[in-house]
Amino acid sequence: MELLEKLKWRYATKAMNGKIVPQEKIDNIIEAISLSPTSSGLQPFEVLVIKNQELKDKIKDISFNQSVVADCSHLLVFAAWDHYTPERINKMFDLTNEVRGFKSEGWENYRQMLLNAYPQRDPEENFHHAAKQAYIAFSNAITAAAFEGVDCTPIEGFEPEKLDKILGLEQKGLRSCLLLPVGYRDESNDWLVKLQKVRKSTDDLITIFD
Amino acid sequence: MELLEKLKWRYATKAMNGKIVPQEKIDNIIEAISLSPTSSGLQPFEVLVIKNQELKDKIKDISFNQSVVADCSHLLVFAAWDHYTPERINKMFDLTNEVRGFKSEGWENYRQMLLNAYPQRDPEENFHHAAKQAYIAFSNAITAAAFEGVDCTPIEGFEPEKLDKILGLEQKGLRSCLLLPVGYRDESNDWLVKLQKVRKSTDDLITIFD
Repeated sequence: MELLEKLKWRYATKAMNGKIVPQEKIDNIIEAISLSPTSSGLQPFEVLVIKNQELKDKIKDISFNQSVVADCSHLLVFAAWDHYTPERINKMFDLTNEVRGFKSEGWENYRQMLLNAYPQRDPEENFHHAAKQAYIAFSNAITAAAFEGVDCTPIEGFEPEKLDKILGLEQKGLRSCLLLPVGYRDESNDWLVKLQKVRKSTDDLITIFD
Repeated sequence: MELLEKLKWRYATKAMNGKIVPQEKIDNIIEAISLSPTSSGLQPFEVLVIKNQELKDKIKDISFNQSVVADCSHLLVFAAWDHYTPERINKMFDLTNEVRGFKSEGWENYRQMLLNAYPQRDPEENFHHAAKQAYIAFSNAITAAAFEGVDCTPIEGFEPEKLDKILGLEQKGLRSCLLLPVGYRDESNDWLVKLQKVRKSTDDLITIFD
């Protein structure tokens, strides 16, 4: 399966060479993010695409100085909704009705169920739930990069509160949760590039109930 | 890009016909799960593969009666570690040294950093972190199913505590977080199969910092 080949090819790139990734490839990665499934189809996150070098340098400083944050071509920041609000829920349900061209009782009942459940929950619980949906899209972004022959580095190690300030995310009701520098490997400076991928045994991963 | 075609083809299947998915396709989906990137390579989750009909029926009862849970071919349950323990962390670092055939100071320092940080954290925070890694693999499982021409249904809607009891997960230090029924669509009974996919506009998803 081509997917398995791509998943074997990719690795968490530790050094990039600053070469620019063509816009078409970035657009395809973004389309994979957009097509990702999310809980109730709410897509409760946004993606900030950072090409500005000064901004990348600044973000590197709050990302434990990881060189790829500055040396990538495009830095993708995944930021999840800080809360589920009625406005946000209604917007997606209205969009669905608009796209599909009809209202259905089942869908409207489902909207009411979410409106009666999500906004009342603890914002922290809602943020975790929204962030988990971002992880689904993040995964597809990583895979899409591999299909484009582009390297990337999945990163959780950064200071989200500081990044939220730099990018003005709080005013948008967003909280950063993941970074994905996208670019091209610098083989001669990457300690990980030639090391073997390590995965636990199938026995430790899978249990079958026949 | 073939990936985008597959992401467009898939949808959250609402009715399945009970047909059995060949083992080779299930094995490829499992390999995609295994190859998924996770934070520090810890792979902090396990996957339960349920073929037993009685068990699937029982799980349907605690999954808001969603028919696909019983009518799928294989029900995949993603269960994340309930906590990061020194044993679990050491096991993955030891495996890495074993596979790569050497120890490095950088890697051992990184092990110590995790040992000094993770086990001391609130177990709930650790569970959320582990579950997020499971979402990355879950995403690849969904994509892998599409590459195999197999349908699936991403499900968060079930009663995790009850499922943990049914599968004896607590004793294994695991908490269920996601279900993925895998099988074949029953087109005549699936209300979603012919409806258009809905995604928010690129403007609502993406912000560019030039």
